[in-house]
Amino acid sequence: MKIAIIGVGLIGGSIALKLRQENIVHHVFGVDQNQNHLQTAIDRGIIDEATTLDNALAQAELIFLAIPVDAARKLLPQVLDHATKQQTVMDVGSTKCGITAAVKNHPNRQRYVAFHPMWGTENSGPGAATAESFSGRAAVICNAEESAKDALETASHIAENLGMHLIYMSAEDHDLHTAYISHISHITSYALANTVLEKEREEDTIFQLASTGFSSTVRLAKSHPEMWVPIFRQNKENVLDVLNEHITQLRKFKSALEKENYDYLEELIRNANKIRGILK
Amino acid sequence: MKIAIIGVGLIGGSIALKLRQENIVHHVFGVDQNQNHLQTAIDRGIIDEATTLDNALAQAELIFLAIPVDAARKLLPQVLDHATKQQTVMDVGSTKCGITAAVKNHPNRQRYVAFHPMWGTENSGPGAATAESFSGRAAVICNAEESAKDALETASHIAENLGMHLIYMSAEDHDLHTAYISHISHITSYALANTVLEKEREEDTIFQLASTGFSSTVRLAKSHPEMWVPIFRQNKENVLDVLNEHITQLRKFKSALEKENYDYLEELIRNANKIRGILK
Repeated sequence: MKIAIIGVGLIGGSIALKLRQENIVHHVFGVDQNQNHLQTAIDRGIIDEATTLDNALAQAELIFLAIPVDAARKLLPQVLDHATKQQTVMDVGSTKCGITAAVKNHPNRQRYVAFHPMWGTENSGPGAATAESFSGRAAVICNAEESAKDALETASHIAENLGMHLIYMSAEDHDLHTAYISHISHITSYALANTVLEKEREEDTIFQLASTGFSSTVRLAKSHPEMWVPIFRQNKENVLDVLNEHITQLRKFKSALEKENYDYLEELIRNANKIRGILK
Repeated sequence: MKIAIIGVGLIGGSIALKLRQENIVHHVFGVDQNQNHLQTAIDRGIIDEATTLDNALAQAELIFLAIPVDAARKLLPQVLDHATKQQTVMDVGSTKCGITAAVKNHPNRQRYVAFHPMWGTENSGPGAATAESFSGRAAVICNAEESAKDALETASHIAENLGMHLIYMSAEDHDLHTAYISHISHITSYALANTVLEKEREEDTIFQLASTGFSSTVRLAKSHPEMWVPIFRQNKENVLDVLNEHITQLRKFKSALEKENYDYLEELIRNANKIRGILK
């Protein structure tokens, strides 16, 4: 199969590496505005060829949009304009309502599969790409009824070769769930980093002390705004709902401490511990 | 050296395993109220002998208090009552003002070294203990001027054999810094877990979806109240200061989203990204 990766970054690069390793992809076209990323992708054997968007679209059987969600929403209708019945287009974005709405009435809508592999790190760019990223994780396909059967089969074949199990849901459900399990985590990490940077002036000491708990909680705060501002913008309503609830939950801890109500504090913690039974 | 581990849990057990591996400890007395923990510790080769507190104190050259910080604060004066000039007593707690104040005027204060190895996990008990926990991490000694020179040398020798580098500071500074880099992370994780448990009823879906970001952010929410309520109680003022600042920082994200001020949102994220330069 010949594939095109539009946006040769962490996710696009990791997909290409893995599909190549599985021997189901024999030529990878890379398209990116960032020449350094293209060069790194060539050097690392992620892509065979850096080319133009038009050229990639003309030749690839499978096209991945692996760019920020605002850019993907804008670009997808143009890509579908040129899509033939032999081509499948997939995105990998962390929000799905915006992009599926943008092409809902497009004559070639059926060639598109709304796809979200549930993996990422705080790093970005093809230098951070790795073939073993996706194994064992979930991938979501949204609004499957709007895609052609053969396009869904292609997506399923891809997910299988990435080592992922598929979950099907509506774009609305997807955006609600990702607000809980991904988007809010990023906001709390950013806010925690800003808390420390604001209040703690003895940087040397604190970061010598920083233990594993801190690193894992704040790790996501390294994630770039180019990717995350568009996600928060597209999923604003859900993210605000969850953020309001999160602030309410934090206020309960504050109240328990202020009132020195340690029975209540323990109750809050015991409730949180239930996550142990659910999250391995 | 003969040592006593009072509280054969994750930290006490890990210390014993590592010091044994380094061949600087030849007999380990284990004291615990939990008979299952003692049995596990014997089965895993963490301790040689389960015994009474009195017996352990009578025979060990080095005594570790590895119990929750409220219990340690209560027990330390009794342990020091019996301490000879050949014995050293160390604790491993995550707060230091309470325990150092409790023994400030004790006639044997000099035999005690206030010690905090900066490592932990969300798991507890001797089953979770591991020899390679501490390597490369910081350990703090507080109020060193109140300890005898030879007791500090023993603590330094222990830290070295645990693979840790020592940092010296006052108990006040320690409790302020740990509020930032450890205690607040636990509160945000607990609150995040409660947010998800409160709002999200489709548990099956969400936890199938949960990606690495969520797991790492919520991991600490599995930590037990037996350990953490006493820490929050002892460090209440610092934790409240940091928690208030954290809620303020979260409100900035909320405001940016509500007002659709995405330039401000980007600014908040770019500021948080500075953590990248400080935290590897």
